[in-house]
Amino acid sequence: MSTDRLQQMRALISEEGMDVFLVSQQENRRYLSGFTGSSGWLFVSQRQAILATDFRYTEQAEQESHQFEIFQTTGVLSSWFTKLVITHGWRRLGFDADAISFAVYQQLSNIIKDAQLDLELIPSKGIVKKLRSIKDQGEIKLISKGVELTDAAFNRALKLLRLRPGITEKELAWEIESFFRQNGAEGTAFDIIVAAGPNTALPHARPGDRQVQPGEPILIDMGARIDGYCSDFTRTICMDKADEKLQQIYTIVLDAQQSAIRNIKSGMTGAEADSLARSIIEQAGYGDAFGHGLGHGIGLEIHESPSLSRLSTDILRDGMIFSIEPGIYIPGYGGVRIEDTVSLEEGTIKVLTKSAKHLLF
Amino acid sequence: MSTDRLQQMRALISEEGMDVFLVSQQENRRYLSGFTGSSGWLFVSQRQAILATDFRYTEQAEQESHQFEIFQTTGVLSSWFTKLVITHGWRRLGFDADAISFAVYQQLSNIIKDAQLDLELIPSKGIVKKLRSIKDQGEIKLISKGVELTDAAFNRALKLLRLRPGITEKELAWEIESFFRQNGAEGTAFDIIVAAGPNTALPHARPGDRQVQPGEPILIDMGARIDGYCSDFTRTICMDKADEKLQQIYTIVLDAQQSAIRNIKSGMTGAEADSLARSIIEQAGYGDAFGHGLGHGIGLEIHESPSLSRLSTDILRDGMIFSIEPGIYIPGYGGVRIEDTVSLEEGTIKVLTKSAKHLLF
Repeated sequence: MSTDRLQQMRALISEEGMDVFLVSQQENRRYLSGFTGSSGWLFVSQRQAILATDFRYTEQAEQESHQFEIFQTTGVLSSWFTKLVITHGWRRLGFDADAISFAVYQQLSNIIKDAQLDLELIPSKGIVKKLRSIKDQGEIKLISKGVELTDAAFNRALKLLRLRPGITEKELAWEIESFFRQNGAEGTAFDIIVAAGPNTALPHARPGDRQVQPGEPILIDMGARIDGYCSDFTRTICMDKADEKLQQIYTIVLDAQQSAIRNIKSGMTGAEADSLARSIIEQAGYGDAFGHGLGHGIGLEIHESPSLSRLSTDILRDGMIFSIEPGIYIPGYGGVRIEDTVSLEEGTIKVLTKSAKHLLF
Repeated sequence: MSTDRLQQMRALISEEGMDVFLVSQQENRRYLSGFTGSSGWLFVSQRQAILATDFRYTEQAEQESHQFEIFQTTGVLSSWFTKLVITHGWRRLGFDADAISFAVYQQLSNIIKDAQLDLELIPSKGIVKKLRSIKDQGEIKLISKGVELTDAAFNRALKLLRLRPGITEKELAWEIESFFRQNGAEGTAFDIIVAAGPNTALPHARPGDRQVQPGEPILIDMGARIDGYCSDFTRTICMDKADEKLQQIYTIVLDAQQSAIRNIKSGMTGAEADSLARSIIEQAGYGDAFGHGLGHGIGLEIHESPSLSRLSTDILRDGMIFSIEPGIYIPGYGGVRIEDTVSLEEGTIKVLTKSAKHLLF
């Protein structure tokens, strides 16, 4: 993709004492090379940038990855891998331990042994993910476009809830997906959640045939994907009237979210950020009902670095984009989650999501 | 899911000398437990069937996985994993080497060392995938429903090509996707390919803004997903008139496909099946232009066991469902692929896809 990314990658490889790095995870591959195919390995060294892929993808790779030499793989891994290593004289091959299966690691180890290659395998964690966590202007623009689309889709969903009384969770989810696709998204960032009544107590509910009713919580969690980049959005709403319990829970979640938005600063850990919201929910007596983390990085993947959660040691930095999404879930009754996509700029939170946060409508 | 599957799994675990098996891959997990969430680990032993998942999924897991004891994971892996191992006295833990990352393997190894557990990690390959490759009646029914939907969608696409001259690849792909969703599919089995003209030379083309024209090849590759199960379908067509070269290539690919359909028998290897079609394409002088395998198993994943390809040692057996999809691709000119979803029954191929195979329409 950009020369910057390759340069940054090369600096990190050198720091880690590797002479070449293997990238196989799809989004990491795309980030560094621009290649959008679903199969291929990058080999990045100080002098080489090679994209090894098979027959199905070589033409596409030539079109998408100008900074990379395209190497068409044929036959078994042992033959082309050995050839590449010998040709370039690689000795210390870094790889992402999260992205390589134990089977592939074993296979590479056996190839090295059988071919008597003088090559060391060096596991590392999250080098490319770390690069990816700081967004450049182009990435911020794409994510912001996706966020705008979630705002517009929410607006459309509110209208549909009035226009089509008795609409089911599934129907509304499909209307949102269609809206995304007809307005410039290539798809959804994840399976859209529309949940009503007690279904809102499931943080990852799947839309079903339940008809949405006035007086019960309706939770909509959705994200669009534009040029590979995700957005993430949740609102919980209630038509006409809400019982006292729902209003009370809603207020607590909203307080927790707003406190996090106001107080998260660059330099904090993910755990410190999480506790800003969690402490409010705990003080209100609902600590056990908020069982997930406060947020997650958003980019080419819907869940990426940084993590905002109880145990996260990730440092939050300017240029990161992530979700802030506290929730309270009460089995059998229902739940509330409020989520914005935000960025860190000049030390503080900028909220990209614009939709209002009213429970009743 | 079914008691049968757990029983078969337990027999395999015992054969392999393991006393418990860890399942983490999403489709394997769903196949054995019915759980459709995106995060969780199964532990299957002769006496236990445990689904370990976090707060977000425990309620869903209770609803979906009646045969499994639901274990809510809290805190770090080392604490809950150690607790499970000690409680049940496990000594030989099998895992799927393709599904566990090197990082998780390292993490488990370290936990075992630090907690001084008397537990051996036993890598194995494809135990659950092997079970999954033979479909039961319920699975055949779901896949067949998906195949019917691809036939209906193709019919619809042919009508749209006439009704909307100048329709783009992207627009047609979206019409097909909408058709799937409005007719009972939960989504597509993979990103739909609609390619026209020279774009058909890319086996995995992405639909773009090219308007479809009479006289050029149009390739449509699509699959629906119903209750998790995939279907797979490709036709290459041409409106009004086709040049001689396209007609010639089409005839070769069709011959190759029909020969495979007639001659593939239970008991063959994937490589033998592949060569039935490949030899015809090679004899016609296009061997280099058919760079992918003849087919792949279809089920909860769009690409699963068995593999029909040059190097595949998989044995084809009754009850398997897979694709037969030879192709010829000529860079800069275009390509042809014809694909049916088929099953093996009583030793021979039954073609599930019903659509005609005419180039011109």
